[in-house]
Amino acid sequence: MIIQNDLLLRAARGEKIERPPVWVMRQAGRVLPEYRATRKIAGSFKSLVTNPELACEVTIQPVDLLGVDAAIIFSDILVIPEALGLPYNMDEGKGPSFDRVIRTAGDVEALSSDNIGEKLEYVTKAISLTKAALSGRVPLIGFAGAPWTIFCYMTEGKGSKEFAVSRRMLIENPELAHALLSKITDATISYLKTQIAAGADLVQVFDSWAGVLNPKLYAEFAIPYLKKICENIDEVPVTVFAKGAWYAFHDLVTLPCATLGLDWHIDPRWARGIAGDRYTLQGNLDPAMLYGSFDQIKKETREMLRNFGTQRHIANLGHGVYPDTNPDNLKCFIETVQSS
Amino acid sequence: MIIQNDLLLRAARGEKIERPPVWVMRQAGRVLPEYRATRKIAGSFKSLVTNPELACEVTIQPVDLLGVDAAIIFSDILVIPEALGLPYNMDEGKGPSFDRVIRTAGDVEALSSDNIGEKLEYVTKAISLTKAALSGRVPLIGFAGAPWTIFCYMTEGKGSKEFAVSRRMLIENPELAHALLSKITDATISYLKTQIAAGADLVQVFDSWAGVLNPKLYAEFAIPYLKKICENIDEVPVTVFAKGAWYAFHDLVTLPCATLGLDWHIDPRWARGIAGDRYTLQGNLDPAMLYGSFDQIKKETREMLRNFGTQRHIANLGHGVYPDTNPDNLKCFIETVQSS
Repeated sequence: MIIQNDLLLRAARGEKIERPPVWVMRQAGRVLPEYRATRKIAGSFKSLVTNPELACEVTIQPVDLLGVDAAIIFSDILVIPEALGLPYNMDEGKGPSFDRVIRTAGDVEALSSDNIGEKLEYVTKAISLTKAALSGRVPLIGFAGAPWTIFCYMTEGKGSKEFAVSRRMLIENPELAHALLSKITDATISYLKTQIAAGADLVQVFDSWAGVLNPKLYAEFAIPYLKKICENIDEVPVTVFAKGAWYAFHDLVTLPCATLGLDWHIDPRWARGIAGDRYTLQGNLDPAMLYGSFDQIKKETREMLRNFGTQRHIANLGHGVYPDTNPDNLKCFIETVQSS
Repeated sequence: MIIQNDLLLRAARGEKIERPPVWVMRQAGRVLPEYRATRKIAGSFKSLVTNPELACEVTIQPVDLLGVDAAIIFSDILVIPEALGLPYNMDEGKGPSFDRVIRTAGDVEALSSDNIGEKLEYVTKAISLTKAALSGRVPLIGFAGAPWTIFCYMTEGKGSKEFAVSRRMLIENPELAHALLSKITDATISYLKTQIAAGADLVQVFDSWAGVLNPKLYAEFAIPYLKKICENIDEVPVTVFAKGAWYAFHDLVTLPCATLGLDWHIDPRWARGIAGDRYTLQGNLDPAMLYGSFDQIKKETREMLRNFGTQRHIANLGHGVYPDTNPDNLKCFIETVQSS
């Protein structure tokens, strides 16, 4: 199927673009009243994730309502631990948690990275439905968590400010850590390939907890697994978004991926100076800026666009949109990019 | 009183040192069984903070037990909101919280930055007792939270990953934000001066939540207040530790302070390249590295020392020591610096 608005894909491939494409992390989410209505029908977050029809519905909402240049499949990075054999809970207002965590070599061996596609059929089904419903209007983005970030949840068992349990394991038992990271990586590659086979036009890998490591640990425990994923996905462009990993940016620009995501702390001119035109850069307006007036949002967005330059840029926020953002302010951000 | 081991003060003033002084953030804390015993006697964290005799006791413990080159008074940065009129709770395992938060200009006006020294007499009393008990063995460090970090707690009302409520206020109501930040700054200056009058030999300002802002917001809402504090404290050397503020490092090196603290994400060589020999740098071993073997700790510590250079360095971790660290491993870190 021909994609009518293919700005995102052209930007990722480094082809000439008339203006940067724009989409927003967490665009399919609580910021939209329409999402909250569908979420209510689903009953719980996990019911929404595992229901292909409803997941498709919330994936399409921002395309219809906000006019973004890409859809991103509604799902969660924690479906991978669950498919490996470690189910997660998602409690309202409390974030994710696990009843069991990984501590021993036996725990790692008990995980199975076989048949990931079948175990996560609800995601591939949601992708197929969404592709049909989009009928080529905009590209569909698939995604997964980065191995280090998934490792964090599987060892710490819940969100954390510092993930000291996870980091302790890297230092006390590096062999065990590498075994678990390898298993997660294999499962992630299978999973992304299944998403691509179902219709994902681009895939993004979220390293949400990159920011807790130090340069040496990131080079040893994160970069090689990101590299393996990038090397094994050649069907579609890959985006790597390592939040808080400015300190590892010189390593990130060695990855064989198309696009690097930037969080809102990074000056785009600094990143461009290092990445040059070998990478497309994605980001990075501070999501808190959407609490401002339309005038402020327009001013900050235009400044961001100037700092990235007109080519090899995918406009986005520097992190997920905050749920209490006024959807009109989000729309102002999107329209400012689109009229640039 | 003459200080016998004045390495810390000489390092801060940029004078020649035979080796770097070493102390550890949260050295007076749960890592020591002796601290946990005193904490049990106190009954609660706040009872320990407000009891000068017990606060003195836990302040001295790491000097006696770990042999650090400086003591840091046992207290909490949240005594300032409390002195301003916003009491805090400290719940075991849950972190700090506030029953009321600041939302309006009236809320800010109701805060009083008068008589801070009297309201926080328990801190100055603890400092006097500690100075007497130390009898000049090592210098005593006083401290306070940075205005932005205190602002975070007073507006968000509790710890948070992103402090979206606090950041929203900066953008929606910058006048209110500046009014609150000014009041906190005035109280902080009085407080630090009281600590110095009671005997603090050096003061450190902790900007623990610097990492959630962006370069422009940090320049507008954090740097000017840090600058005012540094300009008003000329009795003793001032250290500014802005955790996660690598993105603002070029602004931090304009502050009229003696020392800049570095978190564990920053390569000391990068910081030295920018700060030159105009600032003493403090830090920055990853606290998770203390989960390693003695050999690993020695290797990593020596590498850190090499990266800082032999002068204008105060050795420390890049953040507070984790409570589940083996005290022998912490001692290994300290002794490795001291035998360098």
